[in-house]
Amino acid sequence: VTQNIYDNQKFFEKYQRLSRSLKGLAGAPEWPALRALLPALGGLRVLDLGCGFGWFSRWARQNGASRVLAIDVSRNMLMRARAETHDPAICYLRADLERLRLQSGSFDLVFSSLALHYVKNLRGLMWKARCSLGAGGRLVFSVEHPIYTAPSSPKWRTASGRRFWPVNGYLEEGPRSTDWLAKGVIKHHRTLATYLNMLLRLGFSISEVNEWGPTRRQIASQPGWADERQRPAFLLVAARR
Amino acid sequence: VTQNIYDNQKFFEKYQRLSRSLKGLAGAPEWPALRALLPALGGLRVLDLGCGFGWFSRWARQNGASRVLAIDVSRNMLMRARAETHDPAICYLRADLERLRLQSGSFDLVFSSLALHYVKNLRGLMWKARCSLGAGGRLVFSVEHPIYTAPSSPKWRTASGRRFWPVNGYLEEGPRSTDWLAKGVIKHHRTLATYLNMLLRLGFSISEVNEWGPTRRQIASQPGWADERQRPAFLLVAARR
Repeated sequence: VTQNIYDNQKFFEKYQRLSRSLKGLAGAPEWPALRALLPALGGLRVLDLGCGFGWFSRWARQNGASRVLAIDVSRNMLMRARAETHDPAICYLRADLERLRLQSGSFDLVFSSLALHYVKNLRGLMWKARCSLGAGGRLVFSVEHPIYTAPSSPKWRTASGRRFWPVNGYLEEGPRSTDWLAKGVIKHHRTLATYLNMLLRLGFSISEVNEWGPTRRQIASQPGWADERQRPAFLLVAARR
Repeated sequence: VTQNIYDNQKFFEKYQRLSRSLKGLAGAPEWPALRALLPALGGLRVLDLGCGFGWFSRWARQNGASRVLAIDVSRNMLMRARAETHDPAICYLRADLERLRLQSGSFDLVFSSLALHYVKNLRGLMWKARCSLGAGGRLVFSVEHPIYTAPSSPKWRTASGRRFWPVNGYLEEGPRSTDWLAKGVIKHHRTLATYLNMLLRLGFSISEVNEWGPTRRQIASQPGWADERQRPAFLLVAARR
């Protein structure tokens, strides 16, 4: 069972005020890089794992997807997603991603944005994702980067005037309890090799890997993001069945 | 042109005293993991890029490789490699890996152990490696892990009784000058995504990725290695043409 932190009211109230909650995809700095990993969506049947407010699901439909099944465990997220969606080809479903049942060959694209690091039994979910894809189907996802999730104390440090990210425990996989918007948010740390080998062993081939940091252009307009080039915040992966 | 630090006498004298120089593959803690990425060698034509003392080349022949072309830029390394090899099917060649010319389709396995992070124009070398492989040919290599090569000050730090590795500059690729056995050793930092995408764009498919750290068993016999599980020291990759 995945922790449902988005239904913690304190967490959710703060989350709602983040740029990505207010502006949607335009407020997510990694979106241009993630979008670049997507296939042309025309006619595709899309599964959106951890859909949140439904920004991607609506974008997918506006860009030609034939239908979208959008899944999230959070009642809060889905309430707003449903209120903001007026499209019968998007179906929102409340479910724990670890208990999902999917029909074989029923999707052409499985997408997930910043949700899979909350999932404990990711191998089980990826196995179901693979089965739900037809031959040639695509998987595109983002997660918090393993360098980001590894540390016991994930905070910038400074020495000799330079900022650095204190990596430890990288090879020790498992839950990490962090205080982000609320105390005790549980994320599951996995190495980058584990993410990739899991997909390879399930029969996916890797198409592209992106270790995301802001571009120089993004930093020029958001100087506060400069540190984000010291280590990647997100891992983006495109794979093919 | 790749820096030829192994022909710096001070560096070489210290390098010769390392466990991996004295004991060969048995003295390289990552060898069991690297070996696990290799195909069965029977009858394979092998290219060993940065062969050093020739440990792998001789092992490959003992395990059935039909012939080995072993290349290194260092006169020191090759002098000892030749002195310790009595096998006409192993050919040692002194060459800068960036200026290599290889015949198309002439190998079944391209191997490299801890050499490619010294190479500036790696894309050029990997392109030649790919052309030198027949269809279905394999590429197996190890390099210093990008988490290891990124920092401006690559030394363990301690805070609140825990050791950590100070990652910065991860997304800024390029040369890093470090003091390892000698001052001013130049290694080329690349992100993990760059290593993988380079191979994918050259038409390789990724078979497996290993972010190496010592096993618990290895730490039990070498307690000094415990910190090496805080971050991966080496990146091991197996790919297929």
